[in-house]
Amino acid sequence: MPSEIEPIEIEPIGHVRGGRIEPIDDDWDAVTALIELDPEQWSPDALAGLDAFSHLDVVYLFHQVDPTVITRDARHPRGNPEWPRVGIFAQRARMRPNRIGVTTCQLLGIDGLSVRVQGLDAIDGSPVIDIKPHVREFTARGDIVQPQWMTELMMNYWVDRSPQ
Amino acid sequence: MPSEIEPIEIEPIGHVRGGRIEPIDDDWDAVTALIELDPEQWSPDALAGLDAFSHLDVVYLFHQVDPTVITRDARHPRGNPEWPRVGIFAQRARMRPNRIGVTTCQLLGIDGLSVRVQGLDAIDGSPVIDIKPHVREFTARGDIVQPQWMTELMMNYWVDRSPQ
Repeated sequence: MPSEIEPIEIEPIGHVRGGRIEPIDDDWDAVTALIELDPEQWSPDALAGLDAFSHLDVVYLFHQVDPTVITRDARHPRGNPEWPRVGIFAQRARMRPNRIGVTTCQLLGIDGLSVRVQGLDAIDGSPVIDIKPHVREFTARGDIVQPQWMTELMMNYWVDRSPQ
Repeated sequence: MPSEIEPIEIEPIGHVRGGRIEPIDDDWDAVTALIELDPEQWSPDALAGLDAFSHLDVVYLFHQVDPTVITRDARHPRGNPEWPRVGIFAQRARMRPNRIGVTTCQLLGIDGLSVRVQGLDAIDGSPVIDIKPHVREFTARGDIVQPQWMTELMMNYWVDRSPQ
């Protein structure tokens, strides 16, 4: 069977500005940042009506991850031997093929081409690939089941639940 | 301010096989399909442990959308004049920059490099860019607010709630 894998070129729509400068593991809901759309590509029209949503799904690049160190085998998440060895597609770790993160965060406000968000786990300078409105009907249909190790890993990931 | 936009090259990890061959708007939970990882890149190790999750977040390419017809201004979703004109980043429409879709779907089973899913709104042949486990703590923190037009648009999007 011939391989049909052809590279795809994507172009950032803008960047994360502010927030953290290092990829710390936990406490991300304490972080506010801006997503700034590239002014050479976008007008505020592209964001029209987005302020009617409480949350966004942000697609971004883990740009500081070296593409040559992508995980291909099964490993203990965060190197913790108490958790099972799992494949990269059973984790949300950064060292993943294509280095793409997808995170649901709170929308705080929009000013021109700047989108203010809270709880986006992307560091300052991260290229943003897409912004989608977070839509109730796009959440999981049916009950969510996940293994205990993931629940433990996520214990302190957001922590700071700032009042809205 | 100089533009820092540099293209990023990504490589599909595999493809959607089966399901629909045309991008119909509604009734996607009636659809089952396979995600087949590229055997030249991946071993089943990459999927180890994924079967402990009920749902996946799949990142894929709307490959049949012509990149030259991407929406940049504000438009009525689905051309419906009863809904407001909104920007592409306030919609989840296909004709979007970078043509990337992100969907939470049910995991039905894994066999080698094949992942069987239900409710993935990607047509046969779609390049898959990433598979992430759907994690309860990665869902929205706080209540989800969305405009009425989106609720109306989504009314029949999934419809078929097949028993698990």
